[in-house]
Amino acid sequence: MLGKMMDQQLLISSLIDHAARCHGRTEIVSVETSGEVEVTNWSEVHCNARRLASALTGLGLPPETRCGTIAWNNRRHLEIYFGTSGAGFICHTLNPRLHPDQMVYIANDAEDRVMFFDRTFLPAVAQLKDRFTTVEHYVLLGPRDAEAAAMLDGLQFYDELIAQGDADFIWPELDERQPSSLCYTSGTTGNPKGVLYTHRSTLLHSLAGNHPDGLAISARDTVMPVVPMFHVNAWGVPYTAAAAGAKLVLPGPGLDGESLVGLIDGHEVTAAFGVPTIWMGLLAALEKTGSKVPSLTRTIVGGAPMPPSMYTAFRDKYDVELIQAWGMTETSPVATVNQTLSQHAKLPQDAQTAIRVGQGRALFGAEIRLVDENGNTLPQDGKTQGDLQVRGPWVVHTYFGKEQHALTEDGWFDTGDVATIDPDGFMVIRDRSKDIIKSGGEWISTVELENIAIGHPAIANAAAIAAKHEKWDERPILVAVKSDDVGETDLLNFYDGKVASWQVPDRVIFVDELPLGATGKVVKLKLREAYADILLEGTT
Amino acid sequence: MLGKMMDQQLLISSLIDHAARCHGRTEIVSVETSGEVEVTNWSEVHCNARRLASALTGLGLPPETRCGTIAWNNRRHLEIYFGTSGAGFICHTLNPRLHPDQMVYIANDAEDRVMFFDRTFLPAVAQLKDRFTTVEHYVLLGPRDAEAAAMLDGLQFYDELIAQGDADFIWPELDERQPSSLCYTSGTTGNPKGVLYTHRSTLLHSLAGNHPDGLAISARDTVMPVVPMFHVNAWGVPYTAAAAGAKLVLPGPGLDGESLVGLIDGHEVTAAFGVPTIWMGLLAALEKTGSKVPSLTRTIVGGAPMPPSMYTAFRDKYDVELIQAWGMTETSPVATVNQTLSQHAKLPQDAQTAIRVGQGRALFGAEIRLVDENGNTLPQDGKTQGDLQVRGPWVVHTYFGKEQHALTEDGWFDTGDVATIDPDGFMVIRDRSKDIIKSGGEWISTVELENIAIGHPAIANAAAIAAKHEKWDERPILVAVKSDDVGETDLLNFYDGKVASWQVPDRVIFVDELPLGATGKVVKLKLREAYADILLEGTT
Ligand SMILES: Nc1ncnc2c1ncn2[C@@H]1O[C@H](COP(=O)(O)OP(=O)(O)OP(=O)(O)O)[C@@H](O)[C@H]1O
Ligand SMILES: Nc1ncnc2c1ncn2[C@@H]1O[C@H](COP(=O)(O)OP(=O)(O)OP(=O)(O)O)[C@@H](O)[C@H]1O
Ligand SMILES: [Mg+2]
Ligand SMILES: [Mg+2]
Repeated sequence: MLGKMMDQQLLISSLIDHAARCHGRTEIVSVETSGEVEVTNWSEVHCNARRLASALTGLGLPPETRCGTIAWNNRRHLEIYFGTSGAGFICHTLNPRLHPDQMVYIANDAEDRVMFFDRTFLPAVAQLKDRFTTVEHYVLLGPRDAEAAAMLDGLQFYDELIAQGDADFIWPELDERQPSSLCYTSGTTGNPKGVLYTHRSTLLHSLAGNHPDGLAISARDTVMPVVPMFHVNAWGVPYTAAAAGAKLVLPGPGLDGESLVGLIDGHEVTAAFGVPTIWMGLLAALEKTGSKVPSLTRTIVGGAPMPPSMYTAFRDKYDVELIQAWGMTETSPVATVNQTLSQHAKLPQDAQTAIRVGQGRALFGAEIRLVDENGNTLPQDGKTQGDLQVRGPWVVHTYFGKEQHALTEDGWFDTGDVATIDPDGFMVIRDRSKDIIKSGGEWISTVELENIAIGHPAIANAAAIAAKHEKWDERPILVAVKSDDVGETDLLNFYDGKVASWQVPDRVIFVDELPLGATGKVVKLKLREAYADILLEGTT
Repeated sequence: MLGKMMDQQLLISSLIDHAARCHGRTEIVSVETSGEVEVTNWSEVHCNARRLASALTGLGLPPETRCGTIAWNNRRHLEIYFGTSGAGFICHTLNPRLHPDQMVYIANDAEDRVMFFDRTFLPAVAQLKDRFTTVEHYVLLGPRDAEAAAMLDGLQFYDELIAQGDADFIWPELDERQPSSLCYTSGTTGNPKGVLYTHRSTLLHSLAGNHPDGLAISARDTVMPVVPMFHVNAWGVPYTAAAAGAKLVLPGPGLDGESLVGLIDGHEVTAAFGVPTIWMGLLAALEKTGSKVPSLTRTIVGGAPMPPSMYTAFRDKYDVELIQAWGMTETSPVATVNQTLSQHAKLPQDAQTAIRVGQGRALFGAEIRLVDENGNTLPQDGKTQGDLQVRGPWVVHTYFGKEQHALTEDGWFDTGDVATIDPDGFMVIRDRSKDIIKSGGEWISTVELENIAIGHPAIANAAAIAAKHEKWDERPILVAVKSDDVGETDLLNFYDGKVASWQVPDRVIFVDELPLGATGKVVKLKLREAYADILLEGTT
């Protein structure tokens, strides 16, 4: 016997319908690629999404057609999120910061038939056009533009395309297990892999992820996703904001600290989302501009470890709570969020900080566990370090285009991260398994070494990597970018009392900048290529 | 092509597993039927739920066996919620305040094979035993008790039953559309009807219902559901609290104001849930005891209209926000919650109060609309009054045991409530369609008349009903309970300037108490039986 409740599918179209119906007049502020600020609302975004759905359907595209996007965070991109998925197509966000070869690989691997892109990327797209083997429709996000039309044969214009569409388009009644969007991983540790989300996984991620102990977005929030809509659906913020009826501020192309301060103060942003490097930039801009960002109550930080020094700076100087979250492209992405428990309120501030700088606890629906190299489950005692595995209805099962599923024998996904979990369920990422250093049989966390270096006032950024060593197999070295004058010995002395002496790096190499990947993470692979042998040379 | 994400079922067992895994040490305070206070935690509740599941399975009960409960809010009842549903049985909560004939009807209609009950209800159960035609196992919630055993042949004892069960019982992998629990409506307007919830509907209700604009329960909350677990799953609070890892205070049988003040202050309750009559009692007890309930930040009020005077009393004297919610047994029950929008923060306090005393806006996932008597959709202008209809994945499709579905032709459920909805989506219940008064062709809301009366300092409770009238068809009369001295004329003068003069009741009848139904609502049917002809008599 099946139950007697209404059998409704969980569909992305229901999110935008809800936002339009209940929060139609709530504003969406969008910084266009030209830098101009446009103000629209959920009702208009909803109309345009339906128009787009209608127009794409009119082009004769079959269900599940992949529609690529190469775009900033702006309202047209938002409309594409809902218009493509709602109509049964697949919204495939491409990361414009990837190497052109990777872009080509990804677009062809996904068999994108439509490619939406912002003006910024017109030259790149025009150049790659001959290598995109499946794309039939190139659509520039904007009105007709003669100069652009001249640069790319057969170019279509978004505003013209949707003008042909019907705002009363009726969403198809899809199966919630049908695919809705596609995103490839950052490519930090190798080639990007495609994750094909479903309507169901997307809605459950937003529903479970927005509890008070999750992202906690309400209709009283003005939310700014600085995290790009071209990677992991901007952590699902567009969907969650629609469900909550929050006001959105979409920052467009200018992600430097000063632009962000201007947007936060200009539109009274209450909650902002992004990777640590973004907040580093914001912090610098705050010191420079003198703004105290009074509207901002919290930022959600993820994608890479949050330096503890950043946490305390925001809290103490700007009364902004940095809430760390952890996840992956493969987990939609949010799986853990650092929201405290009632007993923590009574702890001294230092102890509270120690909890806050970790990656937090699992959302209901996202189970996490630690295993050793043989797959045995490890204790959650806050000390034992192991391979982090995850499972849940918004976790990948099989990568896009692959035959073989991506799970362990007993159905868990291995994250490639090394972590601890304490008895209250608070998880701390110690490192990536590919980055962690094994020195004389003992593990050294590169994250810990980097956090200390970044806490030094004269250091802007730092990466710790393993260098080969004759006696110890591997020894840590530090590659660092200065913001002020400091010498190698001074910096190494800074580790005194913060880690055991055998964990202190053997060398510091000062560089002008660190190699960043497509989502703003340091590509340690490149650093290892450059410096892995440096201690061997030194000893020979 | 189906998507490539993990295909996990949404099951009630996953809620209690999560609570045990991530919040195992979080306390559950339970007032036993004896009045004793017992403290347990999510981990122990989880173990006992598995033991129970194992023991029931051991009894040879087939899947989907209905297991009745007649019990207060206590930890054994909580274990039964998870143990029965988790194992694939159906948790059927019975309302002990129903008429014995209704209890018999419901237990037989549901074909309950197990009946769990608290000591309080032993005499009643012993008496009804011969009329319960399907029950095979009578289980008293407690340890062995010789006196009880003598009163009911073959009586089993909960503590002995679960002692036989295995705490490592493995939950079956059910289909999320399988039924999980069963509850009958209050019987306010006729015979109770059964609603058969599914695992899916229950989880979606908890997931969507716990956003910041919903119940907003976090792991930092201590939650007291005063709303009974024997009706509509205590508004889903047991499930939602498990997902959030909140501390629970289960108040047992003593629901008078003073007991509640003691529990709130003694256990630092932050959020309490219940019907307006409960908070009336609490308010009186606060005045008497002088407690300011400093821990309590909010109570969620639903099930019947919240009198505005109660709202301001709690806010102004105790700094407690009363958050009104609306729903029905048929909607799991939460469908709307009154959480404000950002623009409201700038309004003067009176205007804010006017919004707060309505029933709030729809959760994402629960769609509401107004229709006229012909089924035409009405505008959401805050003025037009119409029949309220609802749909969503936690709304009933077909009543238990019925062949015919309960929906309109286009798939909505008609609530039997009459409401307005404003352009921001805020809904106000004007009345039940069976209660609303039609006087000379104009509607008069009984809710409005009652709210004014209850706002009078000398009135403890009041019900407005339609009395037959020769000229106007119907005229309002008021049936009221005094808390202090007041005369009919004084009370009627109190309406001056608050409603149009033709809406003022024709008569006041003072009574010692109002007839309350099984969930604490005034049974107007009975009042109409008694007083509907009173104006006719007066004129003849
Ligand atoms: N809060 C966080 N703290 C530390 N690391 C994090 C955090 N959030 C995410 N990460 C890191 O980011 C990874 C997920 O990133 P993403 O899916 O964007 O691709 P990637 O792993 O960087 O790239 P690829 O898988 O292609 O090598 C996680 O596995 C983890 O290593
Ligand atoms: N916040 C509220 N304000 C006003 N009325 C409410 C509110 N919440 C619930 N109600 C009323 O309660 C009803 C649902 O109650 P419930 O399902 O417990 O049974 P009932 O309708 O009282 O009984 P029956 O359907 O058997 O006659 C709603 O239809 C509505 O009339
Ligand atoms: Mg990865
Ligand atoms: Mg009803």
